Amino acid sequence: MVVVLEKNVTEKQLENVIKHLEDFGFAVHKSTGVEQIILGAIGVQPNFDIRRVKILEGVAEVYRITEPFKLASRSFKKENTKIKLGNIVIGDKDVVVIAGPCAVESEEQIFILAEIVSKAGAKILRGGAFKPRTSPYSFQGLGEKGLKLLRRAADKFGLLVITEVMESSQINLIEQYTDIFQVGARNMQNFSLLRDLGKAAKPIMLKRGLSATIDDWLMSAEYILSNGNQNIMLCERGIRTFETYTRYTFDISSIPVVHNRSHLPVIADPSHATGLRDKVIPMARAAVAAGADGIMVEVHHDPENALSDGPQALLPEQFSELMTQIKAIAEVIGRKLV
Amino acid sequence: MVVVLEKNVTEKQLENVIKHLEDFGFAVHKSTGVEQIILGAIGVQPNFDIRRVKILEGVAEVYRITEPFKLASRSFKKENTKIKLGNIVIGDKDVVVIAGPCAVESEEQIFILAEIVSKAGAKILRGGAFKPRTSPYSFQGLGEKGLKLLRRAADKFGLLVITEVMESSQINLIEQYTDIFQVGARNMQNFSLLRDLGKAAKPIMLKRGLSATIDDWLMSAEYILSNGNQNIMLCERGIRTFETYTRYTFDISSIPVVHNRSHLPVIADPSHATGLRDKVIPMARAAVAAGADGIMVEVHHDPENALSDGPQALLPEQFSELMTQIKAIAEVIGRKLV
Amino acid sequence: MVVVLEKNVTEKQLENVIKHLEDFGFAVHKSTGVEQIILGAIGVQPNFDIRRVKILEGVAEVYRITEPFKLASRSFKKENTKIKLGNIVIGDKDVVVIAGPCAVESEEQIFILAEIVSKAGAKILRGGAFKPRTSPYSFQGLGEKGLKLLRRAADKFGLLVITEVMESSQINLIEQYTDIFQVGARNMQNFSLLRDLGKAAKPIMLKRGLSATIDDWLMSAEYILSNGNQNIMLCERGIRTFETYTRYTFDISSIPVVHNRSHLPVIADPSHATGLRDKVIPMARAAVAAGADGIMVEVHHDPENALSDGPQALLPEQFSELMTQIKAIAEVIGRKLV
Amino acid sequence: MVVVLEKNVTEKQLENVIKHLEDFGFAVHKSTGVEQIILGAIGVQPNFDIRRVKILEGVAEVYRITEPFKLASRSFKKENTKIKLGNIVIGDKDVVVIAGPCAVESEEQIFILAEIVSKAGAKILRGGAFKPRTSPYSFQGLGEKGLKLLRRAADKFGLLVITEVMESSQINLIEQYTDIFQVGARNMQNFSLLRDLGKAAKPIMLKRGLSATIDDWLMSAEYILSNGNQNIMLCERGIRTFETYTRYTFDISSIPVVHNRSHLPVIADPSHATGLRDKVIPMARAAVAAGADGIMVEVHHDPENALSDGPQALLPEQFSELMTQIKAIAEVIGRKLV
Repeated sequence: MVVVLEKNVTEKQLENVIKHLEDFGFAVHKSTGVEQIILGAIGVQPNFDIRRVKILEGVAEVYRITEPFKLASRSFKKENTKIKLGNIVIGDKDVVVIAGPCAVESEEQIFILAEIVSKAGAKILRGGAFKPRTSPYSFQGLGEKGLKLLRRAADKFGLLVITEVMESSQINLIEQYTDIFQVGARNMQNFSLLRDLGKAAKPIMLKRGLSATIDDWLMSAEYILSNGNQNIMLCERGIRTFETYTRYTFDISSIPVVHNRSHLPVIADPSHATGLRDKVIPMARAAVAAGADGIMVEVHHDPENALSDGPQALLPEQFSELMTQIKAIAEVIGRKLV
Repeated sequence: MVVVLEKNVTEKQLENVIKHLEDFGFAVHKSTGVEQIILGAIGVQPNFDIRRVKILEGVAEVYRITEPFKLASRSFKKENTKIKLGNIVIGDKDVVVIAGPCAVESEEQIFILAEIVSKAGAKILRGGAFKPRTSPYSFQGLGEKGLKLLRRAADKFGLLVITEVMESSQINLIEQYTDIFQVGARNMQNFSLLRDLGKAAKPIMLKRGLSATIDDWLMSAEYILSNGNQNIMLCERGIRTFETYTRYTFDISSIPVVHNRSHLPVIADPSHATGLRDKVIPMARAAVAAGADGIMVEVHHDPENALSDGPQALLPEQFSELMTQIKAIAEVIGRKLV
Repeated sequence: MVVVLEKNVTEKQLENVIKHLEDFGFAVHKSTGVEQIILGAIGVQPNFDIRRVKILEGVAEVYRITEPFKLASRSFKKENTKIKLGNIVIGDKDVVVIAGPCAVESEEQIFILAEIVSKAGAKILRGGAFKPRTSPYSFQGLGEKGLKLLRRAADKFGLLVITEVMESSQINLIEQYTDIFQVGARNMQNFSLLRDLGKAAKPIMLKRGLSATIDDWLMSAEYILSNGNQNIMLCERGIRTFETYTRYTFDISSIPVVHNRSHLPVIADPSHATGLRDKVIPMARAAVAAGADGIMVEVHHDPENALSDGPQALLPEQFSELMTQIKAIAEVIGRKLV
Repeated sequence: MVVVLEKNVTEKQLENVIKHLEDFGFAVHKSTGVEQIILGAIGVQPNFDIRRVKILEGVAEVYRITEPFKLASRSFKKENTKIKLGNIVIGDKDVVVIAGPCAVESEEQIFILAEIVSKAGAKILRGGAFKPRTSPYSFQGLGEKGLKLLRRAADKFGLLVITEVMESSQINLIEQYTDIFQVGARNMQNFSLLRDLGKAAKPIMLKRGLSATIDDWLMSAEYILSNGNQNIMLCERGIRTFETYTRYTFDISSIPVVHNRSHLPVIADPSHATGLRDKVIPMARAAVAAGADGIMVEVHHDPENALSDGPQALLPEQFSELMTQIKAIAEVIGRKLV
């Protein structure tokens, strides 16, 4: 922590600030310039609330110099986290594709889609069984029945499964059927859920909250990591801004930023970010070009009749075309579509 | 719903759009202008996803004309919701003050603060026992022990209690000690929790999410209302914007906007909105001047040693001065500080 | 400037960083902790681009410790800037009211409104003669004819005049008619205009840009100040956020923040901030309660037929009622409506 | 325009609304449903302020159904605008690269850089001679001397020139030296400048304002178009959001959105969007993958000593590598790097 003192700080105020810092457990180094005094307060306390120093008299500014997270940071762990699932690895050279419908709607639907996406080259089948819907009157998912269908469809076509968990009481049930737990954007700071998932045995995909800074997002990953579960992939899905033409603003820059600050893989979800089918393809390509470790896209063979989010689902032929394009783009940057 | 067709829509496309609208259960009215055709699709379906029409060929724009929420809207219920608790009423003429520490820290602390805030005129004591903290390493609250202390301190000084609930499994426990459940900003779209609180017997204070539009916020209230619990007050606590000098941007305009769109009372929380003690007082005054039904402020007698959020807590003498000012401001606009 | 080095910085990298800092003209102080080294780089260079240090090898973080502006800062000038105009003073104890139509439309209109607002207690008449309109097809103002009408109407009713300047070539003309130049939000970073207004003799009201941080805003004031003109008042008029129910989000918190960081007065404009007549009154009250040095509101006797922004203009009787309320609120906080 | 009436609208209110609409010049069509009445107001008035109807009694909601711009819209002009300059065309199949320093600093610097970027395949040389700087104390550019150097360096290496114009009084001077006028983000709504550039003979590159919606941006293009100049290319350079890790949030989604709504080409500027050299490369690739008609990047052979924005400039070898990558990506989507 760096403490900048006011230009007219008194000797007594200075002593008081130093005393407080020492009481908080920091070693203090003083730099005296012509105009201003700076204190370096050294000692790692990642969760120290710097406003406790800011309010002391004579203090002008305070800067945290350590990242608020530890286990999630690249400085703590230099090598990429590589999540092995079956014969794929997320977080290494390969680019992995997760595809499927927004929600599992019926046996017929999920088997048709599992076949379509596996033939086109996806490795993981997505599909919600428990759906967090903004409206209490919207379709809320098939529950356990949906989980079973999803698992059977994935198994038949050699796919892995990812599905969303909304509350701690669902963890045990969902763990029986899924390979990856998805935590939705609106639950990114549901700390009770994060803590409990930290004790789960399966990997987690943690979506970025609508208004989460990159540091908030990594801090939520820290909740899971500090409770024991090391297999986390992050998922960029758009942030809320003033621009409303797209549902959210797809913050593709977060991909290289996270790769710089953290060892965790990053998946990109252009379907939820844009909310519009014809924007999903260019944005999926952009995410791969920016270095995403994978993409997640919604696909539906009959989007007009989908029970949720049909308007953002790709048609099967669009999905195939996208796969061809991102395969080529991955190769341009020295990666491989698995 | 209003559907605007493209200027060069074909007869066949037009028929197809009309057929879809009718299949979705709408009655369709056609207006033909010189340049453009507009369809009015009438029939209340608050959760209809308008993108299902947007993707049809020949459609230029689609507008929802009904609010996405029903029970929360002023058009559904004209009179203000008035929440009676002991001898106070929230949502009528009176302005109510909720005050206390961020977290219950010890018996001594909460009893001292209960006395201070009750003497200054607050009617409801706040204090967290279960704390949602951004960092897993921060103080997480005293749990049930904190609830017991909070209740005893409130009872001794004739105060009501409000405290935060973070997960469904805590509802029964907390309900034994609190008068009002608080739902934090980060849980505003924790739909499982909202649904379960809809079945609770005590009133709810629902904080606005960091990036929630006013409609999102009312939609979350709808979750609680539609599950049975009608006693909801909303709480504006700042939204996330590009300005970082204050922790969040306190959207005071939301107070008159909500009063216009909904019958639910609105409380304002300047402590979390600004995050800085010396901004709390002017912003508390502003919220009352804008018509808030109450304010919630953090107060601490020893903020330098508070376990959480000390830097934004008012000192006891500041709180007393604030009470005097908002009492006078309430009267200017024909209300009364209770 | 504070430079935090990476944990594994080499001796050679460290030397290189220090050499660069010295070459840039800073005196360097080194603090060595157990885990990390911090450099204090002392020497005031308000416009130094800290990224020049950030890109050096071995550097983890860099913090600016001096404010980017100087003349605008409270630390440079402790006392409030007080702008004397006729028999009023802006920036002292008094709260001043600026009122009038969005645009000067006709002789009849501006004389009617000048009378209405002066009778209700406003001291400054507003009215655009050159209008910056988002659409090239909208009414662009009456130009010099409008300036003449505005001046004559103001003089007749003992009012001062404020009107907008859009480009440097208008400065000489407008200066003949106005008492205060208004710089619109969209021109807040039109640096050519700011520079030229720095040489003008009349005071400036500088509106905050739609996406300007408080520091950006003060930096724009610095442009004017550094060119010689010391009579600047700032004007908060709402920032752009994701919330669209109001036109902009009225950042009332900026009022106490600016008062803390700068000696310049702050006016609040609830009309443009909210864009909706029935939100103007509560927001004007809130701004005064938060400590604004004045408010600017649009008033129109026939808003249905106003050529611009009629929907946000107060009716004359609403304006009178507002004046009564803010007079009382000003007194609650020890100020006086002049 | 679509006008939705309140459920309990009276016959008299309805008549009054219809009368007003007709007086405003609209043809009115009424649709009566079980619960609600909708009016279609037909007649193109792109700059009509819909709030004039919103404030009438009995009106619940009003929606504009025509775009606020006309000449800039895809519905007005179906084919892409193709800007021919020398032997390149912007807005057709080719992807064009604009590169060079932030500012022209010296003869040596601009000639070195012109050679570097032309050898790597760029076709247009950028370099500021008049610099809009946030701080009045920063380097403001070499002025006409810079223009001359830029032109000579470009001519020597067969490049076209783009440079920024900050005020109307510079247009004639700059037009002698440049091939394209650049309008900076902070001047996007400097309507006086836009109007005057509408009369200039050279093409314009209009950067998106920091907080401009896509519609605002196209509306500013409309200012230029409606004054006669049809050769406009837009430039996405990041918008201001709550995320501060990057300087701005690069809204890559705007590329396909603009292509959908308008016929104007879109260039992407990852250097200003991210502000960090190591994020420029992945973001430049992403922009091309998303369909940008060109990219503009800052390159410097000695960024540590650049007079402005050195930290975001690519090194020559990074630029060459980027050219190789985007050439390959352009081909994946059926385009060609010119």
